Amino acid sequence: MDARNLLVLLSFGITLVLLVTWFHLPLLSLTNKEALNCNIYSGWCTSKNRFHSSSSDPNPINKPTTFSNHHQQLKHEFDVPRHPLDPLTIQEFNEVRAVLSTHPLFKSSNSYTLNSLVLEEPDKELVLKWKKGQPLLPRKASIVALVKGVTHTLTVDLNTNQITNHETSPAAGYPTMTIEEMMSVLDVPLKNNEFNNTITKHGVDLADLVCLPLSSGWYGTPVEENIRLIKVQCYSRKGSVNFYMKPIEGVTVLVDMDKKEVVSITDNGQNIPIANGVDTDYRYSVQKLNKELKLINPISLEQPKGPSFTVDGHIVKWANWEFHLKPDPRAGIIISQAKVRDPDTSELRSVIYKGFTSELFVPYMDPTDGWYFKTYMDAGEYGFGLQAMPLDPLNDCPRNAYYMDGVFASADGTPFIQPNMICIFESYAGDIAWRHAECPITDMRVTEVRPKVTLVVRMAAAVANYDYIMDWEFQTDGLIRSKVGLSGILMVKGTTYENMNQVPDQEYLYGTLLSENIIGVIHDHFITYYLDMDVDGSDNSFVKVNIKRQETSPGESPRKSYLKAVRKVAKTEKDAQIKLQLYDPSEFHVVNSLKKTKVGNPVGYKLVPGATAASLLDPEDPPQKRAAFTNNQIWVTPYNKSEQWAGGLLVYQSQGDDTLQVWSNRDRPIENKDIVLWYTVGFHHVPCQEDYPIMPTVSSSFDLKPVNFFERNPILRMPPNFKDDLPVCKAQDSA
Amino acid sequence: MDARNLLVLLSFGITLVLLVTWFHLPLLSLTNKEALNCNIYSGWCTSKNRFHSSSSDPNPINKPTTFSNHHQQLKHEFDVPRHPLDPLTIQEFNEVRAVLSTHPLFKSSNSYTLNSLVLEEPDKELVLKWKKGQPLLPRKASIVALVKGVTHTLTVDLNTNQITNHETSPAAGYPTMTIEEMMSVLDVPLKNNEFNNTITKHGVDLADLVCLPLSSGWYGTPVEENIRLIKVQCYSRKGSVNFYMKPIEGVTVLVDMDKKEVVSITDNGQNIPIANGVDTDYRYSVQKLNKELKLINPISLEQPKGPSFTVDGHIVKWANWEFHLKPDPRAGIIISQAKVRDPDTSELRSVIYKGFTSELFVPYMDPTDGWYFKTYMDAGEYGFGLQAMPLDPLNDCPRNAYYMDGVFASADGTPFIQPNMICIFESYAGDIAWRHAECPITDMRVTEVRPKVTLVVRMAAAVANYDYIMDWEFQTDGLIRSKVGLSGILMVKGTTYENMNQVPDQEYLYGTLLSENIIGVIHDHFITYYLDMDVDGSDNSFVKVNIKRQETSPGESPRKSYLKAVRKVAKTEKDAQIKLQLYDPSEFHVVNSLKKTKVGNPVGYKLVPGATAASLLDPEDPPQKRAAFTNNQIWVTPYNKSEQWAGGLLVYQSQGDDTLQVWSNRDRPIENKDIVLWYTVGFHHVPCQEDYPIMPTVSSSFDLKPVNFFERNPILRMPPNFKDDLPVCKAQDSA
Repeated sequence: MDARNLLVLLSFGITLVLLVTWFHLPLLSLTNKEALNCNIYSGWCTSKNRFHSSSSDPNPINKPTTFSNHHQQLKHEFDVPRHPLDPLTIQEFNEVRAVLSTHPLFKSSNSYTLNSLVLEEPDKELVLKWKKGQPLLPRKASIVALVKGVTHTLTVDLNTNQITNHETSPAAGYPTMTIEEMMSVLDVPLKNNEFNNTITKHGVDLADLVCLPLSSGWYGTPVEENIRLIKVQCYSRKGSVNFYMKPIEGVTVLVDMDKKEVVSITDNGQNIPIANGVDTDYRYSVQKLNKELKLINPISLEQPKGPSFTVDGHIVKWANWEFHLKPDPRAGIIISQAKVRDPDTSELRSVIYKGFTSELFVPYMDPTDGWYFKTYMDAGEYGFGLQAMPLDPLNDCPRNAYYMDGVFASADGTPFIQPNMICIFESYAGDIAWRHAECPITDMRVTEVRPKVTLVVRMAAAVANYDYIMDWEFQTDGLIRSKVGLSGILMVKGTTYENMNQVPDQEYLYGTLLSENIIGVIHDHFITYYLDMDVDGSDNSFVKVNIKRQETSPGESPRKSYLKAVRKVAKTEKDAQIKLQLYDPSEFHVVNSLKKTKVGNPVGYKLVPGATAASLLDPEDPPQKRAAFTNNQIWVTPYNKSEQWAGGLLVYQSQGDDTLQVWSNRDRPIENKDIVLWYTVGFHHVPCQEDYPIMPTVSSSFDLKPVNFFERNPILRMPPNFKDDLPVCKAQDSA
Repeated sequence: MDARNLLVLLSFGITLVLLVTWFHLPLLSLTNKEALNCNIYSGWCTSKNRFHSSSSDPNPINKPTTFSNHHQQLKHEFDVPRHPLDPLTIQEFNEVRAVLSTHPLFKSSNSYTLNSLVLEEPDKELVLKWKKGQPLLPRKASIVALVKGVTHTLTVDLNTNQITNHETSPAAGYPTMTIEEMMSVLDVPLKNNEFNNTITKHGVDLADLVCLPLSSGWYGTPVEENIRLIKVQCYSRKGSVNFYMKPIEGVTVLVDMDKKEVVSITDNGQNIPIANGVDTDYRYSVQKLNKELKLINPISLEQPKGPSFTVDGHIVKWANWEFHLKPDPRAGIIISQAKVRDPDTSELRSVIYKGFTSELFVPYMDPTDGWYFKTYMDAGEYGFGLQAMPLDPLNDCPRNAYYMDGVFASADGTPFIQPNMICIFESYAGDIAWRHAECPITDMRVTEVRPKVTLVVRMAAAVANYDYIMDWEFQTDGLIRSKVGLSGILMVKGTTYENMNQVPDQEYLYGTLLSENIIGVIHDHFITYYLDMDVDGSDNSFVKVNIKRQETSPGESPRKSYLKAVRKVAKTEKDAQIKLQLYDPSEFHVVNSLKKTKVGNPVGYKLVPGATAASLLDPEDPPQKRAAFTNNQIWVTPYNKSEQWAGGLLVYQSQGDDTLQVWSNRDRPIENKDIVLWYTVGFHHVPCQEDYPIMPTVSSSFDLKPVNFFERNPILRMPPNFKDDLPVCKAQDSA
């Protein structure tokens, strides 16, 4: 940051604390072994303290930035990988940087960004053979770097300290932005007088300005050629920490991300007032208390003997489950080698080799200038894991939760800690795992009920306004539920209207008038999961069990019809491109072709969709082409190490030439193969006033459920609750 | 029971305890003020003790029947109604019996059954006007009685002690069976030598016999005319309490329910062995323990300051909710006058006038002789509330639950207690009501998270083999979730096959081979809800908010398409007959036509379907005609006091002439009316081995969710968890 800018900034008063971090990050250059210094790197620096005190702190945003994650660094300084899939450690990150620094591309820290630096997982067959106690498989790092507009992918071998692979990508599109890039972009408009004048004309003091870096999509227009673009839109935070509810509508700055230059400034919102933001601050510290909601006595999930799971490095063991868990900057949570113990044989049996959120697609439904481009692909553009903020220990997860930190690389490769990024806890909601009571008809005195306790792995990613609560829930009956919760804050549009009675009959608002001068714009959310199923091994097939009406023959039965289950094995990929239909239902099984149960049923797991929504955009609409992975709800592809990201490796400004749709259209054989199942959870969101100024969580999920995988109910022998096992609890304040 | 039968029965040995109740019940005649005597009435008699000890009791079915619900009777002896919707009390039941006994129809206790005896709710407008503290509205009882094959409906005025209304029904069909009828039917085959010989031929000792009364549906065949029929099928309970897994396949006894005579005996199963039933006993007391499943430490929902709800008679108050709750012999749980408090005005605002499970439909998908008729309508045929067994306090519901008893009338009007039929508890699963964390981009130090605590009202009905766990869940954000959990035991079919490799390619099994000689037959479950929505009053409309693709005009936008929300008010009933479609989605709003929010949106609640299934049977198939209420997922009818049971008042052997489909086809106006919303939750169940010998719970649900009902998020001001509020807990055994 140069001195001139600093002076300008000082006049912003309290905003300085916020803005100062945006400016210096791209200039940062740490030496190889240097620990991250929070005093100059505060944008990254988080601490438990920072996040945990928010509720009781009356005005936390004005606090000086004295917090530090130094102790977090120390905690992980001597981490060593113990499993082939363990993420890169601090030491390994530093080794990678040392290797890269010998390469001409990375001589000057100003000339490149490392947009992705993660473990290059060993070949699947090697991982499958590896056993605990054996020497670790060779460690490699996979790097995606942007150098002068060109995307390079590299492999660094950490055993030989060599770059063993180096390619430039022929695909359109750019890698995931680094947080430094997102922040640095926000500096650009502020240096532009036209922009500053525009903001002032809208009646907003520059000191109250908060801006967001908005990925601009791709529309095939000339301005998009050979240039990495981003759009900046801004808000006023005057009077409310909830600046999202105070958009400076119509002002969009198009920025060249690499040159850090304003390309154009649009202002279509001269007549649109900034909403007043009254009562939009959602912080507890500023609320007038609500008597009714205060009346709930404390309630807590209590385990006086402690949790029943163990976490050994990245291996989680609980009840009959065992899996590898790691944070990932792009996917968020990665579950690997999930295995469930067979109660009959005590054998650990494979279910999933690897499961994660591959991509998101969030198109807004407003074709006008300031809105049409909002068609976010959060994982590939912003990094879903990068946006996963530290969890609040008593509110994001119950008290007994275990927390796992993320150790990621910043734009120059320096490792940093994302503390408390993932939590693991046992949940009991009062639900029932199974039950039966004999009825009075038989008069057998039997009532047997088993409580349902599950293990939840959770992350919460705040991709700017929206908060995604991502759960993987493991049940003792073998079921895995993957749940998406949507909360956070709407992306709203400013309007001149204060009441619907002012809106002419013919006018369509693209959303709901939520408050005076505020429209909640309609949008969709799609979350696409990569599910490399290995049901009892890698040799799997996908079977559609179609449930269809069968008419009876004359005289066959007093019934005219019944439903018949018709099994069809998918031979090639196109057989497994599936749109769900209520009136043409199927079950979707992944079976092991080589294994049968004792009575001869193929061993399998089924995908059970929950409530969902489909993308209804025109398939030829550019955003839909880029997000063509949402063209079906289900896909199955043969395993291919390079096909993990449903929208392609390089999603930013992608053109749709490297999506799941493109791969699947090759129509490769998928019968008796190592196959990958893809499923998309969707939501249509027509905002309502209850979503203002912050949204109650809305959730959906899908299940992976054993289907003739076990010989019988695997939790038949599970005990019920007995009174003497349950805890004795006292109120804390009387303790 | 006559002496001859008793002697025969004594030779059955331990089965006597079970069977003795089947025989004497219809002969029972209690005087007006007599309390139920459990020594002669053991089929009804339940006690907390009976059900709570099941898990620790090694062999409960062999215990002498010393339990009693006498203390339960005493507990309710002096119950008085305090709200116009409160169910009939013991005293009122006895008054009804006194009034009826003066009528010639009811002179002889042998000649009639009271198939339904419940409160006749006062007119809705009177209930709506009634306020606490005012004198109770006149109390009336509504009676459905079967006298010599004719269904009578009567009203007894409990203020005047007069029969004020008396009609015989012109509709086809019979009333809900009484439990006495179900039991007495089972006596009939046993008196028949041919039957006894048949059973013996199948290699089953009569001492091991357990039989079930199976409603026979209606198929328009001559044998069904003017006769109330039921089918009896039997099982062997040799070696396992789980007799359901040991069907005597192919043997069906058709019984005249009124004459108590065998009409015919079919035996198509001569070659089909009885399955061995090995390891099918699901009782904890007989299990070999499973190490993995024993490893879960005790976990409990703890509230050291106690629950936050109150139950005053039948009024439940919790957080911002207030509603009337009562047990009903047919519907199970009835929620009335559910109101939520507006945090801005502190006003209690109406959401639902009355909500309950109106009917179920469970068609099995096997058209062969012993199976085609299995198309159960559990509420109208068996009484969903009658089948709701006492809940197991530490396993069906968490420790802090409150239990509500059912007080119902037996076949002669004598009141009896269904103890612990409904539980009410607060649930916290570790989930999040809302959250937002500011991301590093803005660097504002804000993380605000609120835990999600809900209030659950639960019942578990065991309709013979199946257990339905029925939840109404209230959320502080105004959402009501109605959830159906399916557990219990499959209805299975005997087969000669022991392995799928014995099944010829062409042969279709109508289900899944679950174990040697056992097929789990494919079936559906439909649960249809009556939802008399009164959103801020009775003047409501149903609005379909269709979400459809809008193509942009050339040059309008770089986007080719977006989704548009198109509101359409349903004018008449047919506008609201809705089949859900993923690719033609809508939101379904019930709005108050007279009320708008401050910014002018209509005040409403929306129905949000969860995962569901549609009935695919031929609409002209007799079972589908009788269950025509499943022809759509959503219906809306104008309020009509007589249209509450979706399959008609008289469902047993109904012919489909009095269903929701018939009413709705009248296509009455529904705009700006007092309207009733109907929603059906569906499941296709293709059984799998994991469902054997008892099924892990599978659930689905739908939500009623405020949509512009509140001005803003109603739980904005809710507090987070603070460490000092949460309990301190110790393990019980170290306490």
